Amino acid sequence: MSFELLATDSSSHARRGRLTTPHGVVETPVFMPVGTQGTVKAMHPDELKALNSQIILGNTYHLFVRPGMEIMKEAGGLHAFANWDRPILTDSGGFQVFSLAKLRKIKEEGCHFQNHLDGTPMFIGPETSMEIQATLGSDVAMLFDECTPYPCEAKEAEKSLDLTLRWARRCRTWIDEHRPQTGGGAQQHFGIVQGSVYKELRERSARELVAMGFDGYAIGGLSVGEPEEDMMRIAEWTTPHLPANQARYAMGLGTPPQVIELIARGIDMFDCVLPTRLARNGTAFTHEGMMNLRNACYARDFRPISEDTHPLCQGFSRAYIRHLVQAQEILGLRLISLHNLHFYASLTSRARQAIEQGCFAEFRAEVVAKYNSHPSASES
Amino acid sequence: MSFELLATDSSSHARRGRLTTPHGVVETPVFMPVGTQGTVKAMHPDELKALNSQIILGNTYHLFVRPGMEIMKEAGGLHAFANWDRPILTDSGGFQVFSLAKLRKIKEEGCHFQNHLDGTPMFIGPETSMEIQATLGSDVAMLFDECTPYPCEAKEAEKSLDLTLRWARRCRTWIDEHRPQTGGGAQQHFGIVQGSVYKELRERSARELVAMGFDGYAIGGLSVGEPEEDMMRIAEWTTPHLPANQARYAMGLGTPPQVIELIARGIDMFDCVLPTRLARNGTAFTHEGMMNLRNACYARDFRPISEDTHPLCQGFSRAYIRHLVQAQEILGLRLISLHNLHFYASLTSRARQAIEQGCFAEFRAEVVAKYNSHPSASES
Ligand SMILES: [Zn+2]
Ligand SMILES: [Zn+2]
Repeated sequence: MSFELLATDSSSHARRGRLTTPHGVVETPVFMPVGTQGTVKAMHPDELKALNSQIILGNTYHLFVRPGMEIMKEAGGLHAFANWDRPILTDSGGFQVFSLAKLRKIKEEGCHFQNHLDGTPMFIGPETSMEIQATLGSDVAMLFDECTPYPCEAKEAEKSLDLTLRWARRCRTWIDEHRPQTGGGAQQHFGIVQGSVYKELRERSARELVAMGFDGYAIGGLSVGEPEEDMMRIAEWTTPHLPANQARYAMGLGTPPQVIELIARGIDMFDCVLPTRLARNGTAFTHEGMMNLRNACYARDFRPISEDTHPLCQGFSRAYIRHLVQAQEILGLRLISLHNLHFYASLTSRARQAIEQGCFAEFRAEVVAKYNSHPSASES
Repeated sequence: MSFELLATDSSSHARRGRLTTPHGVVETPVFMPVGTQGTVKAMHPDELKALNSQIILGNTYHLFVRPGMEIMKEAGGLHAFANWDRPILTDSGGFQVFSLAKLRKIKEEGCHFQNHLDGTPMFIGPETSMEIQATLGSDVAMLFDECTPYPCEAKEAEKSLDLTLRWARRCRTWIDEHRPQTGGGAQQHFGIVQGSVYKELRERSARELVAMGFDGYAIGGLSVGEPEEDMMRIAEWTTPHLPANQARYAMGLGTPPQVIELIARGIDMFDCVLPTRLARNGTAFTHEGMMNLRNACYARDFRPISEDTHPLCQGFSRAYIRHLVQAQEILGLRLISLHNLHFYASLTSRARQAIEQGCFAEFRAEVVAKYNSHPSASES
């Protein structure tokens, strides 16, 4: 098995684990920075390593559209292309086809669409998605699924889930036939549990995927607009039906308290664009909440963003970073991106330590209380 | 004296020198990256150090307009504000007032203008410029001068030079009265030789500035549209009138062969926005000329930009950097900026070595011949 369960928390379902991939080991719970177009926005791979990023995400849809698979093949895959030798997880392309592409038509065979760049007609189906991800050579490839919108009626959600499960079977067949390799080892494949906000659908989805047998399981269709209680309920419904000795991944999540609450519900892996997206907006994560460095109150604040920011960000004051953001200088968003990615890396690293040391309950209470009690860090 | 002449070339006027400033030693000839708004565009100070940047430039006009002098004072100067502990040179603000500000009126007392950001009426004169630069705490401050446009009639150029010389005397008086300090030592002040393309004016400008006595001398009013022969002639006219044991700085220059040709004419210091500005356009410097990475010919070129690029850029292929530029990803311009700044740092470092080793003539011939023989590196 590629996943090893090292410790479990007595107060919750939190787990301390280790995922072994062809390009290295990932200690879980883990936060994965998002590298949509083959780069984590504004970051250099050396910085990601300095930030202790163990694994990054690549987006199948974006890389399929540009630079395209011919170049990715010649490059020898995404690791070589992007000069990143640690693990990579790729999504299936489905979510982006649904959210970015034009004139998309979902049929039994897969998804026909016009790409968002120049409108070229393209197609991704289960086999294509597996083939693209095999070419990218990611360590973990995700199954091709349909992502239901929110809200979604039960009938619609069931119909969509049925299609996703038929696609999962076709992915399974493709994987068994092709046995894709990367970095001298077997690529891993994670199934994606769907079923919207319906318990029976989520449970059936989990059961049927586990019956097909994959290397890990993700919860999909979260953070599409549903209330946070639904998000947590969905995790609670799903995880009991997933094998304890396999990795669990909550796709596209979340805020710091959401990450901690999902860890408490037995989730091991997270990815989110928030740390880099909010940085472009001048917003930094702190233990107390978000800090918008555009605010005038930081103009003469010569303290660093936080005392425990990363050394690469430590020497720069809020006043300086605010100046850079106001002047639209790239170093501004670089420093905030660095800070935010460090914040998430440090959050999950502290979660791992808390689980190991048996004090996850206190850690969870402290993180959640501190973060929620101050809606804006500028008041602190 | 703050400048030490270590070696001279027998085949030309090239000099190997050392400028000692309160924040450290600068080996010359030197290329100074431009940090207009308190940051060298897209670069982190740690990267500049890895690139062996000995000294960077700051722009008085930009920092005066934003964040403004109150914040710079509270920050304790530009070194502390920008987290840069090596030497800094600041320009006088004059050039930017003339090129960027609106509704500017040059009077005997100085320059009234409306800033380019929000149109606020502002004033910079000789004393203001000295005061701003003292607040910034740069190691080398430039005198406030009027930069003549090109072309410029002799009478106009003379009138402008007279004003610049009267301003220089007022700067001298301000410096003698205030004796500004930085980093525990005396701030240095460089005079700026003006006089457009007129030999007599350039000579008189040099003679009168030297008579007033400054710590070094710059040639101003270059690269304003004049032919390259004029640029070289102006340097040839001027340097014989400057003290051999003081630093000489050609402002705002230049292309790689121009830098080498000006070193051959006795210039020690250079600054230019080309390495970072062209990077934003996808253009890299190579020994053979410019390489525009947007070109389709690089789409499947998996070699690095050049074999001798900086280690921080070495692992990334032209194909990958082209992809990043096409996708408007910041890492693309970061990598090209890194490469270009390394190219200039390495060019001046090799010039220093060639002068020391008595082979500057060969080095000069090789650089200039190689660079000119290929107008575009994409043909090579
Ligand atoms: Zn997210
Ligand atoms: Zn220039």
